[in-house]
Amino acid sequence: MMSMKRRLLLVSNSTLHGGGYLEHCQQQIKDFFGHGVKRVLFIPYALHNRDAYAKTARDKFKTLGYEVDSIHEASDPVKAVREAQGIFIGGGNTFRLLKSLYDNSLVSEIKKRVLQDGVPYMGSSAGTNVSTVSIHTTNDMPIVYPPSFAALGLVPFNINPHYLDPDPHSRHMGETREQRITQFHEEPDTPPVLGLREGSLLLVEGNRATLLGTCKARLFTRGNPTTEYETGSDLSFLLTDRQ
Amino acid sequence: MMSMKRRLLLVSNSTLHGGGYLEHCQQQIKDFFGHGVKRVLFIPYALHNRDAYAKTARDKFKTLGYEVDSIHEASDPVKAVREAQGIFIGGGNTFRLLKSLYDNSLVSEIKKRVLQDGVPYMGSSAGTNVSTVSIHTTNDMPIVYPPSFAALGLVPFNINPHYLDPDPHSRHMGETREQRITQFHEEPDTPPVLGLREGSLLLVEGNRATLLGTCKARLFTRGNPTTEYETGSDLSFLLTDRQ
Ligand SMILES: [Ca+2]
Ligand SMILES: [Ca+2]
Repeated sequence: MMSMKRRLLLVSNSTLHGGGYLEHCQQQIKDFFGHGVKRVLFIPYALHNRDAYAKTARDKFKTLGYEVDSIHEASDPVKAVREAQGIFIGGGNTFRLLKSLYDNSLVSEIKKRVLQDGVPYMGSSAGTNVSTVSIHTTNDMPIVYPPSFAALGLVPFNINPHYLDPDPHSRHMGETREQRITQFHEEPDTPPVLGLREGSLLLVEGNRATLLGTCKARLFTRGNPTTEYETGSDLSFLLTDRQ
Repeated sequence: MMSMKRRLLLVSNSTLHGGGYLEHCQQQIKDFFGHGVKRVLFIPYALHNRDAYAKTARDKFKTLGYEVDSIHEASDPVKAVREAQGIFIGGGNTFRLLKSLYDNSLVSEIKKRVLQDGVPYMGSSAGTNVSTVSIHTTNDMPIVYPPSFAALGLVPFNINPHYLDPDPHSRHMGETREQRITQFHEEPDTPPVLGLREGSLLLVEGNRATLLGTCKARLFTRGNPTTEYETGSDLSFLLTDRQ
């Protein structure tokens, strides 16, 4: 997957504890969309109340100097993607989001715009999940049944947003996040999974990937030990197609 | 769904913090299978290592006076279900479990045995999820893609096992369990969801359902306030088909 034009900002979480919506990554958003983009196409499909969600995104992006068009207000969603200068897919429920992308015939269209035309793509939480190979490593509840778990495939690996370390004091017996990802890697031919803790972001510029934000990220690769990467790490090796 | 023969023991979790495998509910298991059942058919599909899982179940059930046949050792899984005196589906990953049930053509066969022939069915965690209408309210990671989220439908509602109350001290921004179930009920025509905390069990005898175990259960119904039920509560109203 060599794509010199690809530009992605993949955020673990839209709100950090104690902060406002997208507050913890607002400087990175401005650096990412820059001055070339005036209007950002927002995709609110991951939440039920699309009007309220579009208002939240619109208000925040206005303070950063961008106008927001919400795709749920467009008469032709595919055309809206074709004309977008920049795309932002917000968080919520990943299953609902991916199903809506398929229902509106947007999966291949967004992929084409980002990989071929170089339209900058920002995702947060569920919007980060759908940018990867598949939604097999979402944390969300499967409230609807999408026609496939295959996602946009803008990168050749998976991400687990809101990555959470085990709580040594917990008495709860549900699987830890690490156990869940290990179960994924018990299945054949499964790609690496980057565990992005809250406060982390991944910036992809062409074939260069850099970890940004306030904490380390944890990488799970099938058949190999897990690895921790400090913020600022070059993770470009993840963009090379697996052999 | 009037079924006078139906007998179900639906356990939230197989291991309670600090206890051994199925230790917290062993008396209920003996009461449930009783003296009529000599051999229990175990379905280990939710975990990757089926041999190890079958040994764990076999060792425990032996101490309770039952022999275990594991379906993964049967040459004909459908035939094994047809001849079973009792069925136990263990926990693990719900997606993997349901996909394996479909792959082995067991969904309609188990349903028929339990609802028509009165074969006692015990489920734990993922094995409880698949006994309900659908797996839409599992907590598990969607590591594989089943052909449907529709499950055995032995009861006309959904269960959320390992139900977890919000932690007021948490700084994590992922959805709480209550928020996730609320998202499910934002979708149309979704059934009630019984949140079974760890240590809870639901016993179904024909058209009578009783909450057992050590803690309260939380019931979510679309469009209605949530309700708490004490252990010992009669929940038979959940077995009536919705209008
Ligand atoms: Ca989410
Ligand atoms: Ca599980």
